[in-house]
Amino acid sequence: MSTIDTTAPITDDEVFASHAGGKLTVESTMPLDSKRALSIAYTPGVAQVSRAIRDDPARHATHTWASRLVVVLSDGTAVLGLGDIGAAASLPVMEGKSALFREFGGLNSIPLVIDTTDVDEIVETMVRLRPSFGAVNLEDVVAPRCFELEQRLIEALDCPVMHDDQHGTAVVVLAALTNATRLTGRRFADTRVVIAGAGAAGIAVADILLEAGVGDIILTDSQGTIHRDRDDLNVVKARVAAQTNRENIIGGVTEALEGADVFIGVSSSQVPEEAVAAMNDDAIVFALSNPDPEIMPEVAARHAAVVATGRSDFPNQINNVLAFPGIFRGALDAGARRITPAMKVAAATAIADIVGEELSAEYIVPSPLDERVAAGVAAAVIAAAHQDGVTEGVADGVTDGVADGAV
Amino acid sequence: MSTIDTTAPITDDEVFASHAGGKLTVESTMPLDSKRALSIAYTPGVAQVSRAIRDDPARHATHTWASRLVVVLSDGTAVLGLGDIGAAASLPVMEGKSALFREFGGLNSIPLVIDTTDVDEIVETMVRLRPSFGAVNLEDVVAPRCFELEQRLIEALDCPVMHDDQHGTAVVVLAALTNATRLTGRRFADTRVVIAGAGAAGIAVADILLEAGVGDIILTDSQGTIHRDRDDLNVVKARVAAQTNRENIIGGVTEALEGADVFIGVSSSQVPEEAVAAMNDDAIVFALSNPDPEIMPEVAARHAAVVATGRSDFPNQINNVLAFPGIFRGALDAGARRITPAMKVAAATAIADIVGEELSAEYIVPSPLDERVAAGVAAAVIAAAHQDGVTEGVADGVTDGVADGAV
Repeated sequence: MSTIDTTAPITDDEVFASHAGGKLTVESTMPLDSKRALSIAYTPGVAQVSRAIRDDPARHATHTWASRLVVVLSDGTAVLGLGDIGAAASLPVMEGKSALFREFGGLNSIPLVIDTTDVDEIVETMVRLRPSFGAVNLEDVVAPRCFELEQRLIEALDCPVMHDDQHGTAVVVLAALTNATRLTGRRFADTRVVIAGAGAAGIAVADILLEAGVGDIILTDSQGTIHRDRDDLNVVKARVAAQTNRENIIGGVTEALEGADVFIGVSSSQVPEEAVAAMNDDAIVFALSNPDPEIMPEVAARHAAVVATGRSDFPNQINNVLAFPGIFRGALDAGARRITPAMKVAAATAIADIVGEELSAEYIVPSPLDERVAAGVAAAVIAAAHQDGVTEGVADGVTDGVADGAV
Repeated sequence: MSTIDTTAPITDDEVFASHAGGKLTVESTMPLDSKRALSIAYTPGVAQVSRAIRDDPARHATHTWASRLVVVLSDGTAVLGLGDIGAAASLPVMEGKSALFREFGGLNSIPLVIDTTDVDEIVETMVRLRPSFGAVNLEDVVAPRCFELEQRLIEALDCPVMHDDQHGTAVVVLAALTNATRLTGRRFADTRVVIAGAGAAGIAVADILLEAGVGDIILTDSQGTIHRDRDDLNVVKARVAAQTNRENIIGGVTEALEGADVFIGVSSSQVPEEAVAAMNDDAIVFALSNPDPEIMPEVAARHAAVVATGRSDFPNQINNVLAFPGIFRGALDAGARRITPAMKVAAATAIADIVGEELSAEYIVPSPLDERVAAGVAAAVIAAAHQDGVTEGVADGVTDGVADGAV
């Protein structure tokens, strides 16, 4: 089933030449080529705009770029597969993310990398800069700190905040699983899912699948299955242990996969072929680790009906770019103060629905380049935001309730 | 001498329409329109760049946008003539400044407005974000706090930092005064200058004129002339008192102007015509307050040989845009870790020299739209930076010495 990309191989020289000097440029949207233009864009004209915001703070949202500016924020502690490489070394990734926000979401975005890993300090920094931006895409922060940091930022900033490594991944996985279960004739309620990896992505995938009604989920970490009798679990894993692994299966991924319907790998570990062979008929395998999937798709395909990876050189690439541009675009278009669980589920449904009648084992999610995706996701997110009552002007009580229930 | 701009008047509607949604856009410098392009710009290609920076931190300067990114930073405490309107309301000004950096300096720039006026907190915030940028243009921070804040940022960030309301103004004033004294046959050493206003701009103008060798300077604030016997001076004014007003003139601007050669107004106050009439022959008057000059140019011209204002609708506009784009461009091109007094003086000389043979009483500084200015300033700043030894790799001791002596 492999359809390896046949374009020219990418060389190191090509990569470094492309990234030289960075990948972003800031431009003026106004002409500055005459005294008159300067008088409008800068003094004295700009004073009228500043005065208007002073007198009516709502004008900050309409007459600056901030309310629609996405900050891509990272402390560099869990960068791609590279781990804790620090803020400075993470910046090329964050620049790339900002470029993707422009390209796919039509949004302004700037990267801010922060030279502290202290949650209090990161939150405090963003609170101080609050008038400068309108949303935060948290990126590449290590688990379990990322969970606390995201929740604290949501509460403190009162604007769309999303840790993409958690929820971007979760949304696209849910979209892919929606179509994969359609193909294999499963209902979520009857489906047993094994998730290898209980970091940022694994926890968020488990949460969104529970939200979507998946029957049972078993997570594994480096110590094996997560179950209620383990005494080495952090607070997040302990919460998950209480909500998953109904049969309290003890062992490793091999034990977990016996009789399972779905494997989702977000672990950077390997899964033996025999374990996949022991899954139920018409199994679904999402081996998402990059660059090395938990099991190579051609091997998985011997035992599974549907196979996806995180790589662009195989079919069914589970790529966050399907989710985050449209989610933030929709949240900002709606004037939403939160990104709620329902908005994420709506995004996943929209991604899945774009595949439509063309659904096949090798086409369960759209291409990352499919231009329909971001607009479709944004529209679904807007509708869900209004339904959830998190758009501007809602009562504080309602918003707080939603925040408390955030995935 | 008035040459009021005859283009159509600027309407409120036109201003607000132009500023709607903000004035900046962030774009990708790389194509993102194919799987191959995505693989270069984002994963997996970007991982090579991040790994390279991890292994060789110097690559952060060459393979991200940060080292040449200017943050326009404000706490919104002294915005144009509007005063302390807060961070959010100051943002339109900072966006405009970032747009000017692009247009005239060819530099990337982002506005960050910060919701605290505590010097420690502002410095701490920028230190945490240090890997995200390469220079700081401090803007619209109230005096005397701006002096401490600038110095603390210079020491903490070890990159070009400049409070433009101080030094941008000072550089252009020095350029204008250089040409005005040429026209009127004066030597700096024999010239007596009165500066109305002892805030950010007044202090910085005094400092750069002292650096340039002006013979005597008298500053005035709301309490009259600054002299050695006053016991109400803050620490900055007390320092200036010790360096200026040789004859210890006590009184107001009228007393100070008697027999003075030059008036420089940065005060938002008014100066009576009689006071200007009492200046020396061939007087020089820079009435720079906006929108209302300390004395209208047509009135000043009855008694002065050279008149300048801050307005675009009169000749000789003293506009900071003549200075800051080229100063930052030069400092960043040189890899400078400081903006030294000599770099500022070099910038002023470059601005003055562009006028060249065309020098006249109505043309002592170039037009803000003159495309030769930024390049000329940058070249002069680069040369001065190398001479001052503040480019990358110089010994710490040398750099510290320069920092201590910063204007």
